[in-house]
Amino acid sequence: MVASYETLVRSFTKLYRYQHLSAIAAWDQAAMMPQRGNDARGAALAELAVLMHETLTAPQLAAALTAAEGEVTAPVDRASVREMKRQWQSANLLPASLVEQKSLAGSRCEHAWRTQRKANDWAGFLANWKPVVACARQEATLLAEATGLSLYDALVDRFEPGMTAAVIEPMFAELKHWLPPLVQEVLAKQRTEEVLQPTGTFPVEAQRALGLELMSLLGFDFEAGRLDVSTHPFCGGVAEDVRITTRYRTDDFVQAMMGIVHETGHARYEQRLPREWVHLPLGQARSMGIHESQSLSFEMQLGRSRPFLQLIAPLVAKHLGAQPAFAADNLARIYTRVKPGFIRVDADELTYPLHVILRFEIERALVEGDIEPEDVPALWAEKMQAYLGIDTRGNYTDGCLQDIHWTDGAFGYFPSYTLGAMYAAQFFATIRAQVPDLDARIAAGDLAPIFTWLDANLWRQASRWTTPELVERATGAKLSAVHFERHLRARYL
Amino acid sequence: MVASYETLVRSFTKLYRYQHLSAIAAWDQAAMMPQRGNDARGAALAELAVLMHETLTAPQLAAALTAAEGEVTAPVDRASVREMKRQWQSANLLPASLVEQKSLAGSRCEHAWRTQRKANDWAGFLANWKPVVACARQEATLLAEATGLSLYDALVDRFEPGMTAAVIEPMFAELKHWLPPLVQEVLAKQRTEEVLQPTGTFPVEAQRALGLELMSLLGFDFEAGRLDVSTHPFCGGVAEDVRITTRYRTDDFVQAMMGIVHETGHARYEQRLPREWVHLPLGQARSMGIHESQSLSFEMQLGRSRPFLQLIAPLVAKHLGAQPAFAADNLARIYTRVKPGFIRVDADELTYPLHVILRFEIERALVEGDIEPEDVPALWAEKMQAYLGIDTRGNYTDGCLQDIHWTDGAFGYFPSYTLGAMYAAQFFATIRAQVPDLDARIAAGDLAPIFTWLDANLWRQASRWTTPELVERATGAKLSAVHFERHLRARYL
Repeated sequence: MVASYETLVRSFTKLYRYQHLSAIAAWDQAAMMPQRGNDARGAALAELAVLMHETLTAPQLAAALTAAEGEVTAPVDRASVREMKRQWQSANLLPASLVEQKSLAGSRCEHAWRTQRKANDWAGFLANWKPVVACARQEATLLAEATGLSLYDALVDRFEPGMTAAVIEPMFAELKHWLPPLVQEVLAKQRTEEVLQPTGTFPVEAQRALGLELMSLLGFDFEAGRLDVSTHPFCGGVAEDVRITTRYRTDDFVQAMMGIVHETGHARYEQRLPREWVHLPLGQARSMGIHESQSLSFEMQLGRSRPFLQLIAPLVAKHLGAQPAFAADNLARIYTRVKPGFIRVDADELTYPLHVILRFEIERALVEGDIEPEDVPALWAEKMQAYLGIDTRGNYTDGCLQDIHWTDGAFGYFPSYTLGAMYAAQFFATIRAQVPDLDARIAAGDLAPIFTWLDANLWRQASRWTTPELVERATGAKLSAVHFERHLRARYL
Repeated sequence: MVASYETLVRSFTKLYRYQHLSAIAAWDQAAMMPQRGNDARGAALAELAVLMHETLTAPQLAAALTAAEGEVTAPVDRASVREMKRQWQSANLLPASLVEQKSLAGSRCEHAWRTQRKANDWAGFLANWKPVVACARQEATLLAEATGLSLYDALVDRFEPGMTAAVIEPMFAELKHWLPPLVQEVLAKQRTEEVLQPTGTFPVEAQRALGLELMSLLGFDFEAGRLDVSTHPFCGGVAEDVRITTRYRTDDFVQAMMGIVHETGHARYEQRLPREWVHLPLGQARSMGIHESQSLSFEMQLGRSRPFLQLIAPLVAKHLGAQPAFAADNLARIYTRVKPGFIRVDADELTYPLHVILRFEIERALVEGDIEPEDVPALWAEKMQAYLGIDTRGNYTDGCLQDIHWTDGAFGYFPSYTLGAMYAAQFFATIRAQVPDLDARIAAGDLAPIFTWLDANLWRQASRWTTPELVERATGAKLSAVHFERHLRARYL
């Protein structure tokens, strides 16, 4: 190994171990930690954030990176250096003081948000959120100055490298063009459809047992991960020990069950990342959009499909007790039911992109200084009315306080959800072209063709290629919204 | 604040935050982590151990410490510097390479032990344990050279500062003198005693609910801590967020219930450490022996006493269903039943010290090179036969593989258990002298006199005084085994 590259590997291995501690402590904070532990946890995580920042900003790392760029020749090592450089750049453009300030403000805001959301306490939230927004703007300014990107693009680039509002906006404009009429068309069609609602109480333990069985069916490795509960479901932990969470309601299992399928998609991507690179940026997930494409491959492409629901209908009955509503056809109607609503995470596949577009527009204006934090509720209400015909005035709980993302300054993340949906549709179009009898196989419980394709083309590739290269190698074409549109029309019309 | 002291406070605050991450990750490893996460966790914890070591060995810290010793004048700050120096010394006598090697070997050995213990796999354990012992001997050699202590004393000093085999051995010799005949006398007395054994299945959820209610009664703050499950019960986490664990058997609740009372004693000490010093060595628990004195105050002095069992008998019946065996008198007979057995953590109050003396003698010989790891099972069997009349040959599961301590090289810890029992007896003798109607108060549910005394004299004192000073300020006398003997004779004869 070239000496300069060896130095880089040592530093990034150390960083990877710090990230391990950060990920586990953050999972614990969301899923396990009692209330009064939060200040100490916030301080510890902030200290660790500073340390990780110091590791990435050490002068010898900069020198090694410059040297390695000239010395390394093997293609895979060049890709490794490319990904190291990306992480190095993002860290070296921010001063340690801002990193700590941001971590503290985010931790405080997020923790208080857990109770403020329930209390519909916008004023309380706003006080904690202003410092978070101020930090994000400083961050955007510093990143934008150095990269030449716009303020918002500089933040998007952290989650979806190479993606800009100039690319997103036209694709979102396409969606805004055909999606609202499609929603109306589907609503009209579904008006005459009879859907049996599941009735009864669904004990948490029974739902959890069902969830665990679905995770097994979907290939989750329980010797390298867990399922727990948190306010906002997420996939956390580390590649060797993936922690997914959900939240249960005893009067409704529908969202929790599909939420577990969704997080299992994220989890399998992590669990199958190539172990030989896992300690390097090269071996980590490609981007947030590609990550979301995996959860949406599991949830939307596979999970809500008629053959998959046929496959799992007996499991639902086994754990929750048989009832007519659990017939496969009826489950398929439940899981494709379209209904404009308040909550993004509960939104159906058709209206979901409109929630994302709303957030994209608000957070972009916020970061670029066109609006202030105080303006968000009014703008939220206005756009909810315009895009989904829903009145959210005064209801912060189900309005702008519903998501965790903004509480710790993760601006620029939201577009990834809908990019992910478009990637997933394109991936499954490719799989279907290669496996014409895919639906029959799914119904028969043979999910191997899907996992084999995802594994070879995405999971094992990690960050070996840039996102556009990855998508083109896997599907033979650039990302296009056309597969997403085709998928939605085929499923819903 | 003196500038040198300010430098120290900054460094030790950073260290405290790293310790937070280490404690939570270690708790997770024992209570939450799936099997295949262990290598990555071990590597992350080892990296963190190196970092904490680096923090304590930074040259500017040494300089600040020397300066502060000359400059600081306020008594409390001088005590603070004294405790900082103690931590600094122990770290600066060990090279970083040994610290990492030890952490890795310990993590590997402990993890494999979890399955090896069940499989009675001494040979498998031995292979992982030899490197742990080798590291401990290196550590002892380096510490002994620098401090002038013997090899074993140098390890004991990490857990019980100032304590040496020269002090322990005579006290243990006293115990060896009067304890075996006392055990025989009590066995003879109890032979005619009728004890009703609880019968039935005790669901984990019911036992957990009972445990939570007892923790409440004992003042545990659930907004700053949790109760979970692990193979070996322990009290972990951080002062602001204390994590205690237990293990349940559905055919027996007796040990788990009292185990929770025991860990709650540890937990309350942590939860009541003075918050204004909590980030400094000054604000941390005094020693392992004093820590154990708190769990044994809760378990042995309070928990197994007749009036306490009278107080909680209705709670046992409430959660586990009424049965004659739950009468207070019968519970008192169960919880004072003497029966020589294999397992230290299940041992009764009378035979427990003999388990400790056995381990003290073996680990001392092991560290000082008089025996090798291979010799432990034979020596274990011989001493179990001699002290407790029990044959453990070939049974490693219930023999030398039963405890977690040796798996990661915590040699020198075991004496603390019996020192703790002696401290606890002396503390309660003092409380009883001040509160003559203590038993009546306990039976009536008024535990405040106990908590108030422990809080003022021990919990809030943290590491303000050396251990001998602390004990003398609290009780008016040096540690003596006489209170322990009196307590045992009063309870058991």
